[in-house]
Amino acid sequence: MKVINISEVDKNRVTMPGADKVLKQIPISSKDGTPNFSLRVFTVEPDGFTPFHHHTYEQLNYIIEGEGVLINEKGEEKPLKKGDFALVLPNEIHQYKNKLVDKPFVFICGVPKEFE
Amino acid sequence: MKVINISEVDKNRVTMPGADKVLKQIPISSKDGTPNFSLRVFTVEPDGFTPFHHHTYEQLNYIIEGEGVLINEKGEEKPLKKGDFALVLPNEIHQYKNKLVDKPFVFICGVPKEFE
Repeated sequence: MKVINISEVDKNRVTMPGADKVLKQIPISSKDGTPNFSLRVFTVEPDGFTPFHHHTYEQLNYIIEGEGVLINEKGEEKPLKKGDFALVLPNEIHQYKNKLVDKPFVFICGVPKEFE
Repeated sequence: MKVINISEVDKNRVTMPGADKVLKQIPISSKDGTPNFSLRVFTVEPDGFTPFHHHTYEQLNYIIEGEGVLINEKGEEKPLKKGDFALVLPNEIHQYKNKLVDKPFVFICGVPKEFE
């Protein structure tokens, strides 16, 4: 059993092209022996966004705080707020953006352990 | 892509032997086409607890609100509060209990899609 508070997890800036003002934490990963799935936490600062991209694996989200959007392949924005869950299936084009000017947009992003 | 707020998800009482005052929601499940993992949310009411048990699959937790404990095979209690993540590996004996008398203990519980 592992228990860790998000405040104790290293937070690193995402340098992937297409991302801006995004920080990443990894509270549960393959290093912990998780058999199938890992959990990441992204903090998107005001004006920040993740890449508009796709990949072969899915993402499972829970919004911890703030308000943002999940953008689909057509550029349509689905609002996301605290208490929302989202499922992005493999190969779906997607992007997350913070929509508040004064608060971070923080969400869990679960991915298969092979990717974290 | 699916987006759903936890307030929109059906909430049902857990009737499993050994559980008391526990409600369950399933915001992301195999019905949504999730390739690997599903997300459940448990609400443990004051004085409530989940079964003291084990199973062949892991659980990934995030505490949404309240204060409780995660109990291991020795009966030792690890405190859990908002912002905590927990990983219970396959076959580890575990139990969750609410420790507040006036507030629910609410947490995400991720499991392989075969079990939800």
